[in-house]
Amino acid sequence: MALSLNSPTIRQQVAQLGRGLSASASLAQWLAAIERENGRLNAFLCVATEMSRQHASAIDQLAARFPEGLGTLAGIPISVKDLIDTSFLPTTYGHGRFREHVPDRTALCVARLQRAHALIIGKAHLHEFAFGVTNENPHFGPARNPRDPSRITGGSSGGSAASVVGGMAQASVGTDTGGSVRIPAALTGCVGFKPSYGLVPTDGVLPLAPTLDHVGTLANSVEDAAIVTAVMAGIDPDTWLSPPSPAGRLRVAVIPGLVSRFASPEVSAWFEGLTHVLQSRGTIELAGSIDLDADEIARHQANILGAEAYATHRAWLAEHRDAYGADVRERLEDGARVDTASYAESLRFRARFRDAIREVFARYDCILLPTTPIPATRIGEKAVWIHGEERAVRPLLTRFTNPWNLSGAPAISIPAGQVSGLPMGLQIVGKPGGDARLLRIARRIEADIASHLP
Amino acid sequence: MALSLNSPTIRQQVAQLGRGLSASASLAQWLAAIERENGRLNAFLCVATEMSRQHASAIDQLAARFPEGLGTLAGIPISVKDLIDTSFLPTTYGHGRFREHVPDRTALCVARLQRAHALIIGKAHLHEFAFGVTNENPHFGPARNPRDPSRITGGSSGGSAASVVGGMAQASVGTDTGGSVRIPAALTGCVGFKPSYGLVPTDGVLPLAPTLDHVGTLANSVEDAAIVTAVMAGIDPDTWLSPPSPAGRLRVAVIPGLVSRFASPEVSAWFEGLTHVLQSRGTIELAGSIDLDADEIARHQANILGAEAYATHRAWLAEHRDAYGADVRERLEDGARVDTASYAESLRFRARFRDAIREVFARYDCILLPTTPIPATRIGEKAVWIHGEERAVRPLLTRFTNPWNLSGAPAISIPAGQVSGLPMGLQIVGKPGGDARLLRIARRIEADIASHLP
Repeated sequence: MALSLNSPTIRQQVAQLGRGLSASASLAQWLAAIERENGRLNAFLCVATEMSRQHASAIDQLAARFPEGLGTLAGIPISVKDLIDTSFLPTTYGHGRFREHVPDRTALCVARLQRAHALIIGKAHLHEFAFGVTNENPHFGPARNPRDPSRITGGSSGGSAASVVGGMAQASVGTDTGGSVRIPAALTGCVGFKPSYGLVPTDGVLPLAPTLDHVGTLANSVEDAAIVTAVMAGIDPDTWLSPPSPAGRLRVAVIPGLVSRFASPEVSAWFEGLTHVLQSRGTIELAGSIDLDADEIARHQANILGAEAYATHRAWLAEHRDAYGADVRERLEDGARVDTASYAESLRFRARFRDAIREVFARYDCILLPTTPIPATRIGEKAVWIHGEERAVRPLLTRFTNPWNLSGAPAISIPAGQVSGLPMGLQIVGKPGGDARLLRIARRIEADIASHLP
Repeated sequence: MALSLNSPTIRQQVAQLGRGLSASASLAQWLAAIERENGRLNAFLCVATEMSRQHASAIDQLAARFPEGLGTLAGIPISVKDLIDTSFLPTTYGHGRFREHVPDRTALCVARLQRAHALIIGKAHLHEFAFGVTNENPHFGPARNPRDPSRITGGSSGGSAASVVGGMAQASVGTDTGGSVRIPAALTGCVGFKPSYGLVPTDGVLPLAPTLDHVGTLANSVEDAAIVTAVMAGIDPDTWLSPPSPAGRLRVAVIPGLVSRFASPEVSAWFEGLTHVLQSRGTIELAGSIDLDADEIARHQANILGAEAYATHRAWLAEHRDAYGADVRERLEDGARVDTASYAESLRFRARFRDAIREVFARYDCILLPTTPIPATRIGEKAVWIHGEERAVRPLLTRFTNPWNLSGAPAISIPAGQVSGLPMGLQIVGKPGGDARLLRIARRIEADIASHLP
């Protein structure tokens, strides 16, 4: 693996530009890693080799003559999920029919990264139309988990995760409608940050379900994820990162009913051990428990997601039904069956749920739970046995992440050890709109875990 | 005059980079204007000729190879009031003892302009230590008004105003503690914007009175002032400028008691005529009047300003009393006499005044008043006669501007015709924190005035 938690951060790399580090020389190493790893991991659908070289050379000129003008991400190679429009590279949405599709415009979030001098190094693989969480894709094959290429990356931003963990990009832009940034981050062992709903503009991102869709970031560290996300949000990263982390024990809420019902026994034990360690080190205080009605949440989330995804795809589906992969077609056709009254009822449920989640943060600093109930499954594996029940992988994987799409609360997954030799993610949820504070909490927990785990 | 309201805007110039416009060629014209005009107007204390050329050439390289990486202010020459630290040019604070002083660090607001690829073309003249509003300066001579060089520019950001109106900079960074951005903008005929208190960081700006100090912008248009200010605040200018201007008649409050007491009869008549025109064109509705106790405001503002300015200068004044200009020394020694109880009382008054001003904006969109009670006076003129009373120029000039330093409300002066052949500024005041909305209101009024006035 070219990168690990000890790899240089974005800030360290940008600070070295023109002082011994050349963006062009550095880019050559990243491109070599892609050359070496991408065939095995299937992280990129397309690589912007020549354009990145041009941009890197312009950045080196700037570093020589006007270093004050270097952007926050100068020379940093970032991959972009191929659900997001780029006028300079094909954008497939993970669907075969769009293999040659080059959009007229570049999405605003990507334009902001370029404005900050990021090198958009290529387009990352995804679950078809972002509608699935395994990143098994009938058009482009599966993305493969760098920790074990026989296993899924998770998805739908699976290529994003593979590009970061596989050492082919410093960070990646993903999207998250039910967990699509956090799940692959957790299953491959990197950070995945879904900010508050609406914080990063979705202009130029193909919708899955517009009222649940979020643009987020996969990266090697909370700091890197914060910087990339802030740039995409049009916020100065320093305003997020400069204030000190909160002192004293963090008042943490947990959701024991949800976790014990869906997590595998091994994951439950890992999570208990982890919170115990964080408590014993004085980082957190388990200040209380909250209850979530998992069945209601899943039902309403499914109604909204299904109805809105069908609305996006209705015309295409009518004309090109056979061009869709079987799993995505089936989900879209399920979505077509959500009647108006159910959709309306689900929107009302969401409004109440949002208010209830806001209330939680009057009493607690954050919520902690595993990002996923299980570690990465094998490619092709459709179901797993937990507590004597057979559970389908797809709905199981989103159980711990989709409440935070429904509530719009910011949530971040950070790597926190292993279960059965596979990476696990700890999910930290913050108050809606409280992204800056969540990130500072996450940095503190990240540092604590790093000092504790091997 | 090289520039007028019809000159290309910042956005127009940046959009042309690499498409026929070269930053280097454009810079050569700006430097030629400085060569031609600065001797006459005394706008710059120092010009960054060589560095600006280096930076312009780096920007031209970027435009050729990575145009997406061009900053919001790419190639735009901006002057910076010499109260603001720059590590690349001497920073005199308008005081002779600092003629050779080069600070270790560059102020954050200027670093953000450079990050957006502005060319910091030079350091602008100012009233000594920013403690005065005429820009008559015993160390560096007076700055001269481009509309009539026998008259003051106003101050304390007088060199900033002269650089913009004299066609030597596209915009200028000023500071405003009692009107020091808005007054020179009004007296020379450009836009001057003081944002809400705290919006633009003052790190690296020599304090005059820290709880009243604001960093602001002088420019040719509201749009340009908004862009420069947003960049200094770390805000994406599009989030300020993209939403449409408010429709319908703006609900305007006026302050007739204040205006009639201090404005010259000619200024009163001009203001009445102007509001009448804006009403008759359907832009505004004079929805109500508010009262301000001008004597109380002036007294408490003077207490806070005096006490805080003395605190800044106490040690220097003890050691270098004779190095100060007579007017500034006298004001500082007045400040030394503000006792603690009076300062505390004035802070309490300010808290109540802030609340009262916030209340106003529950009922009105903005407050309109002249920026100054009189047009630019002659250099050396100490007093003027108004309504049969002799009034000292300095306290008179700040009567309409300093309430908005005390309240922290954003306020902008826009050029709006002439009195006795000299420029007049219309001041528009918005809700504290409502900078975006104030700017959209100001753009609408600016457009209306432009379509009406010759």
